[in-house]
Amino acid sequence: MSDPLGGRASQTLGDVGEFGVIEALRSRLARSPLVDVGPGDDAAVLQVPDGRVVVTTDTLIDRVHFRTDWADAYDIGRRAAATSIADISAMGASATGLLVALSAPATTDLEWTLRIAQGLSDEAEVVGAAVIGGDLTRSTTVALTVTALGDLGGRAPVLRTGARPGDIVAVAGRLGWAEAGLAVLSRGFSSPRELVSAYRRPEPPYDRGPAAATAGATAMADVSDGLLSDLGHIAQASGVLAHVRTASFEVAEPVAAVAAAYGTDPMNWVLTGGQDHALVATFPEGGPLPLGFVGVGQIAQQESESAPGNGVLVDGAVFPAAPGHRHF
Amino acid sequence: MSDPLGGRASQTLGDVGEFGVIEALRSRLARSPLVDVGPGDDAAVLQVPDGRVVVTTDTLIDRVHFRTDWADAYDIGRRAAATSIADISAMGASATGLLVALSAPATTDLEWTLRIAQGLSDEAEVVGAAVIGGDLTRSTTVALTVTALGDLGGRAPVLRTGARPGDIVAVAGRLGWAEAGLAVLSRGFSSPRELVSAYRRPEPPYDRGPAAATAGATAMADVSDGLLSDLGHIAQASGVLAHVRTASFEVAEPVAAVAAAYGTDPMNWVLTGGQDHALVATFPEGGPLPLGFVGVGQIAQQESESAPGNGVLVDGAVFPAAPGHRHF
Repeated sequence: MSDPLGGRASQTLGDVGEFGVIEALRSRLARSPLVDVGPGDDAAVLQVPDGRVVVTTDTLIDRVHFRTDWADAYDIGRRAAATSIADISAMGASATGLLVALSAPATTDLEWTLRIAQGLSDEAEVVGAAVIGGDLTRSTTVALTVTALGDLGGRAPVLRTGARPGDIVAVAGRLGWAEAGLAVLSRGFSSPRELVSAYRRPEPPYDRGPAAATAGATAMADVSDGLLSDLGHIAQASGVLAHVRTASFEVAEPVAAVAAAYGTDPMNWVLTGGQDHALVATFPEGGPLPLGFVGVGQIAQQESESAPGNGVLVDGAVFPAAPGHRHF
Repeated sequence: MSDPLGGRASQTLGDVGEFGVIEALRSRLARSPLVDVGPGDDAAVLQVPDGRVVVTTDTLIDRVHFRTDWADAYDIGRRAAATSIADISAMGASATGLLVALSAPATTDLEWTLRIAQGLSDEAEVVGAAVIGGDLTRSTTVALTVTALGDLGGRAPVLRTGARPGDIVAVAGRLGWAEAGLAVLSRGFSSPRELVSAYRRPEPPYDRGPAAATAGATAMADVSDGLLSDLGHIAQASGVLAHVRTASFEVAEPVAAVAAAYGTDPMNWVLTGGQDHALVATFPEGGPLPLGFVGVGQIAQQESESAPGNGVLVDGAVFPAAPGHRHF
C-alpha cells in the first residue's frame, strides 16, 4: 500500500489509539526467551547474559530516509530495524531486542502501521531478536526511531578507535547495491529488481560483526553513509590514514550494468553509497580474514596533523567526490 | 531562547553536522562508571549489574508535547528525560543511561540544541544516569525520542498486572500541578511560578519506584496521562476494579488557588492531569506504605465482564470527564 494516510474506509490510529495498536500487534510479534517483560507496561525487561548491554538508536523520517511511494510499509519496517541491528553488529555484538517509537498523523491507516511493525519484527527475527516495546505519538510527519539492544557474548566491543598502522582494511556485505537501486527508482524505474530490492530491504551481514570481533578486528563500523565516509570515521577516531585500492573491489554485475546504462562510474556507488549496511573493519596484518571479509586496503600512519581528505586515500589520492551521505 | 530556528548570526545544525554536535557535547555530558562506551561509536556499551536491563522509549514532539514559546530548550530537555526516567522508576528500577534521537530542521540553532542536551544530561544526573548515545536527523518538525535504560538491583519488576482485590491504591509525587501550570500558560500568564515551573520541569519521585518495589508493591505505573487513566491501565491489566476516594487527596494550595480563580474544580486536575509523572501503585492491605506514598483508594473485584468506566470508580461512581490525556 502506498498511501499511509488512508483514504479508504479502514481503521486509523486515531480510531484505535496506542493501546489498540499494541493489542493488534501482540500476537504478530516475534518472541525471544530473553524477554522477561514485553510491550504494554511502562518499560520492557530484557535479560542481558553478558552483563553489558550494547545499545543504539536511529531515526528514519518520511521524505528524508524513505518515501512511501518507493517502499511499502513492510519494507520500511524491515529497513528501520536493519539500520539499528547493523549498528549492534558493528560493535561485534548480536541484537537481542528492539524498541520502536512511531510518530504519525492520527489519520494514518492502522493496517499500514501494523505492516511496519510486522517488517520490524520479521527483520528482528532474522537475528533472533524480539520487538520488546515502543511508543506511538501523533505528529504531522511519519517518523520511526528504532532502538536496538544487543549482547557481546563475552567479547570486547570493537570500537572505531583501534585501527593501527599496518592493519588490513576489509569489508563484508554489499557495497553500491542500494545506491544503484536508488538511482533506478529516482529515474522512475523499478528494475533491475535485485537492485531496487537491495535499496528497499537491505541484507546486512549481521553475523559477520561478531565473527570479526572473534577474529581480532581492531576497529569496525557499519557502512551506513558510504564506505569512504564510515572508514573516514575509523581513520579519524584512530588517528591514522586509511588507504583503499579500487582494484580490490569486485563490482557486482547488476551494479556495473546500471552504471554503464546511466553513464556513471560504478566505483562512485561502491565507495560512497550507504544503506547496504556493509561492515568495514580493520584486522592485524598477516592473519587470515574471517569468512565473508574481503581486503580492500591498509592502514598507514597519519603523516601530518591535518589528514588529507577525511583520513582516507583512494589509490593514493583524495577522492574527488563527497565521501558519502551528509545528514544536514 | 524561544526561537529554535535561529534568525541570529549563530551556528546551525546544518553548519556543524551530527559529528560537530557530538564533539560540542562531549565535555558537557554527565558521566557514569557504568558506561564502557559512550557517544560517538556505532553503539554504546553500558554495564548491567543486575543481568536484566529495563528499557523504555518515548517521543516528545513540538506543538504536541511541548511548545518552544512555553518552555526553553533546557527545560524541554529536562522534561524529555524525566518522561522516560519516570517509566524506569515505575518498574521499580533505577535509570542508568539515556539515548536521545533528535530530529530538527537544518536551520536549527546549534546553541539551542546544546541546551536541550544539557537539560537531558542534568536530569539524568539527578538519578546518577548518563547520556550514552543518540542520533541527529534532519526533519521539518522538532522531535525528541528518549530511550532510558535501568537496573533492577535484584528486585522483581513491578508490572501493571499484579493488583489484587483488597490492595491499597497509593500515589507518590505531585498531582495536578503541571495541569494547573498548563492552564496558567494557556491563558497567557506566567505565574504562579511554582505551577508554571511544575509544567516546564516536572520533579518525578524517581527514588519512590525502587522503594515501592522493595516494600512489596503488587502493581505500579507512571502517571503520565492522568491518575484515572493510568490507574485504569493497572485495573484493566489486573482484571480488577479500582476505587478512589477524593477526600483522600490533599489539593496543594497553589493548585486550589488557581482553580478557584478560574472557576474550575481542582479535583479534575488532580485526577486527570498528567505530566507531573507521579507514581500510582498498589500495596497489600495492612502493611505500612513506603515513605512518600499516600493511600487514595482500594482495589476490589471486577463484578462483571465489562468494567464500569475504564476500571476506576471515583467515590463509587464513574467519573464524568475523560480520565486523562488521549494520544490520538
